Amino acid sequence: MKISGHSILGFRSVTNAGPSFRGTNPRTGEPLGPDFFCAGAEEANLAASLAHEAFATYSRISGREKGKFLRTIAAKIEGAGDELVERAEQETALPKLRLQGETARTCGQLRLFAQVAEEGSWVMARIDRADASRKPSPKPDLRSMLHALGPVVVFGASNFPLAFSVAGGDTASALAAGNPVIVKGHPAHPGTSELVGQLLQESVQECGLPEGVFSLLLDSGTEVGVALVKHPLVKAVGFTGSHNAGRALMDLAAARPEPIPVFAEMSSTNPVFVLPGALRENSENIATGMYKSLTLGAGQFCTKPGIVFLPENDDAATFIDKLKNLVLESGQFNMLTAGIRSAYQSATTRRKTEQGVKLLAARPSSANDQELGVGAAVFEADKESFLRNPDLAAEVFGPATLVVRHSTRAEVLELARNLGGHLTATIYGTEADLREFGDLVAILENKVGRLVFNGFPTGVEVSHAMVHGGPYPSTSDGRSTSVGSQAIFRFCRPVCYQGFPEVTLPDELRDSNPLGIWRMVDGEMTREPLTTRPRSLRPA
Amino acid sequence: MKISGHSILGFRSVTNAGPSFRGTNPRTGEPLGPDFFCAGAEEANLAASLAHEAFATYSRISGREKGKFLRTIAAKIEGAGDELVERAEQETALPKLRLQGETARTCGQLRLFAQVAEEGSWVMARIDRADASRKPSPKPDLRSMLHALGPVVVFGASNFPLAFSVAGGDTASALAAGNPVIVKGHPAHPGTSELVGQLLQESVQECGLPEGVFSLLLDSGTEVGVALVKHPLVKAVGFTGSHNAGRALMDLAAARPEPIPVFAEMSSTNPVFVLPGALRENSENIATGMYKSLTLGAGQFCTKPGIVFLPENDDAATFIDKLKNLVLESGQFNMLTAGIRSAYQSATTRRKTEQGVKLLAARPSSANDQELGVGAAVFEADKESFLRNPDLAAEVFGPATLVVRHSTRAEVLELARNLGGHLTATIYGTEADLREFGDLVAILENKVGRLVFNGFPTGVEVSHAMVHGGPYPSTSDGRSTSVGSQAIFRFCRPVCYQGFPEVTLPDELRDSNPLGIWRMVDGEMTREPLTTRPRSLRPA
Repeated sequence: MKISGHSILGFRSVTNAGPSFRGTNPRTGEPLGPDFFCAGAEEANLAASLAHEAFATYSRISGREKGKFLRTIAAKIEGAGDELVERAEQETALPKLRLQGETARTCGQLRLFAQVAEEGSWVMARIDRADASRKPSPKPDLRSMLHALGPVVVFGASNFPLAFSVAGGDTASALAAGNPVIVKGHPAHPGTSELVGQLLQESVQECGLPEGVFSLLLDSGTEVGVALVKHPLVKAVGFTGSHNAGRALMDLAAARPEPIPVFAEMSSTNPVFVLPGALRENSENIATGMYKSLTLGAGQFCTKPGIVFLPENDDAATFIDKLKNLVLESGQFNMLTAGIRSAYQSATTRRKTEQGVKLLAARPSSANDQELGVGAAVFEADKESFLRNPDLAAEVFGPATLVVRHSTRAEVLELARNLGGHLTATIYGTEADLREFGDLVAILENKVGRLVFNGFPTGVEVSHAMVHGGPYPSTSDGRSTSVGSQAIFRFCRPVCYQGFPEVTLPDELRDSNPLGIWRMVDGEMTREPLTTRPRSLRPA
Repeated sequence: MKISGHSILGFRSVTNAGPSFRGTNPRTGEPLGPDFFCAGAEEANLAASLAHEAFATYSRISGREKGKFLRTIAAKIEGAGDELVERAEQETALPKLRLQGETARTCGQLRLFAQVAEEGSWVMARIDRADASRKPSPKPDLRSMLHALGPVVVFGASNFPLAFSVAGGDTASALAAGNPVIVKGHPAHPGTSELVGQLLQESVQECGLPEGVFSLLLDSGTEVGVALVKHPLVKAVGFTGSHNAGRALMDLAAARPEPIPVFAEMSSTNPVFVLPGALRENSENIATGMYKSLTLGAGQFCTKPGIVFLPENDDAATFIDKLKNLVLESGQFNMLTAGIRSAYQSATTRRKTEQGVKLLAARPSSANDQELGVGAAVFEADKESFLRNPDLAAEVFGPATLVVRHSTRAEVLELARNLGGHLTATIYGTEADLREFGDLVAILENKVGRLVFNGFPTGVEVSHAMVHGGPYPSTSDGRSTSVGSQAIFRFCRPVCYQGFPEVTLPDELRDSNPLGIWRMVDGEMTREPLTTRPRSLRPA
């Protein structure tokens, strides 16, 4: 495969040369060829028009065909695995093993959504049968199911060059629901983006789908992204990234003549509560787990545990000593980009000066600004300062965390109640702890999308029950997930057919239930076909 | 029951007298006692605080308890039926029979949501079982279900003093999902609102629920509504009303530090396509149905058919003659308020002067501005003017409709493609028509929430498969419905529990499935309990 530096517009490659940029090797700071040309408003408009055209066909193909398409993409990514991992390694400095894992995860996601599309019950088909004899007025035949929304714009994430990028979770779920996708590639890994984009383009061609099902636009700035989000033919947006960028997209989308949903996964500090019993039994092990979780991927995961609440006792002192030692013994962690490194350094430097905060342990960052290494850090804030200063609960993207201690059960609950929206919250405890702190679970349920017990929040399973989404500001809207099969619900809406003859209905809603899917019939879940009853074409 | 003119704040009655207003008898223009006192920002703040406090308890009560509460409200409304209908008749001039029907509908809605809450499967429980032996890392136990969002603000609608007001659909679905509700009563029927509010307040008391589960704030202006939508403790908004008011609420909610969802049902013209075969067989009957539908409730339904597309042929001429005659023979239609009457008169007057539009038939409106009677009207626009001027596709609230004719199949599809978002679209046709116009169905699926075949869109069934919601601008967000049991999905979000011990899980997620609900277990729908397997409390 050859990296051309050109955006992909359906089956075409965009060759008009706008301003250009290059990737960077974060290990060396050296630019990586070739030149990548920035797409602009004109390309955004073309991609949206192609996607809109493709929507009419693509939204109506069968689940089996969508499954085949998603499996084709997965097979191609697997086939090109070494080449992709190699380029991603150059562009991100992430370890090879991690990138291989991420490749497998990306393919796993595509196949999970293929399976969901093929099985077909995800459309939530509902049938209320007619009753011509009902008084005072006859009851009509009503059948509803989920339909695709229209062209979806997906912004690639810096921290997952594969799993949350061109063929990542947002793309897979949007395609599975029947929506064409336009990806705005992240400029931190343009070569990886283009390679995956080529595989997607080939998959569209091989599956005989209309070209507008997929486009990839590259841009080192914000022009093309803004043009896409404002484009009237675009119907939804998926984004993973910083709070400021996410909120800017939310505001743009809300100000459109036709506002559209933005599913932005933005920032989360993922509080951890270590309860007294667990601490007494297991403080060193939990501290080791905490260290591993907060430094995993150099702390550049949206689920990194960035606050840990501990009691004021000797067991907590043991925990803290262990965590400090692990930090002091640690090496350098390579950040993804110079921008992320500099943001981490500013945030940790500022944190040291905040009132009520002390640095418990830190390793220095590399003095050479050409390198992307940083040191891990553990801070402690007193409870009052923490409650007073919302900045202390904000995400620091990188291998740092903050300890906050409490003296009473009431204080634990107060700290929990004071939290904003996060992706996850974690409780370490014994069964006795959980009995004593039942209120804590009840409070945290309203603060997060996922509650973890005796485990760490990093490592987000891709499955049916996963929820990777939480109340604002962790995401734009806590009513959905960006990971797992429930993500398909973000990109669709219900449509109801009243009084339609059998032959004109989608397969999902026909009496015979030819797809064998689960449906709600007169309020009851069933996979059975309907008993045949003639329906009149005449007005009731 | 006694109407006090005071807002209801939990178990209290707000007695501090702000500025006051009165209801109006639309038949006579005379004010109706007593004085109603406007609530303001202070009462909004109190109601939100009470609702927030109540949320912790109310969101966690069982489905059975929520069902009992909703059924208590329904029983009380039935018990007070005559008194409510009498007051509503005075305040709205709607016919008694219609108000009796609306009372029954309101109680039916409450009982439908009671049934959904009691049955319990609506939470979409999902369980992915652990697998400690999975490589490279063990698979955790994950269980997710829907939870309530938090305090919901509901704006009462002018055109449904009962079914879309204080104890209407939005209130019923929000309460069923476990959210406290604060209603901003519509000033067009303050007495009816207060009476229903008292019944709700009594129901909260009788069921032993916390007082903040329900409040009703009255205001003739916008202060209290704005304060509620901006309040940080409010988590969602339900609204039925005009486009301008709905969009204003959307913009307010999107500009909050924490944006929240607004479910606004705003305006829809509900296009009707009468295809050639149907017209040939049945033009007079369809015209009669059209007339009845467009004048039902004086045309003040959100599903009123406001555009009808017809071919250029003799059958269409017969249809139009019939429709014209029915309009010319019709009497006066009483509008709900002086404001709605004056808006209808301006809109129909303006329409006459639009380029390419002619008035086919109209009855004069009452000359006496103290009365609320208006005449029905049918306009015709030529296709080119209709396509050029988006105002012609906009809703005229009242008994008016617009005919647009086409000459070819391609023109029908062009007209359909040009439509914006509507709640419904209707097709009158034979089976042969549907075969010929299959594309039309495909286009309309992307424009509306409900497609009606050989029936009229007025008459919105309250059932499981109903979708009363469509793409913007018919609603704020076409991904949900405001009528039918699927409305419960608007006011909740998924929460996932990872590795939690059985005893600490909600009933819906326990191994034994004590509620007997439908759950997705490892991707398969089932009501069976899980086979017991011990789960460790230790970290994986």
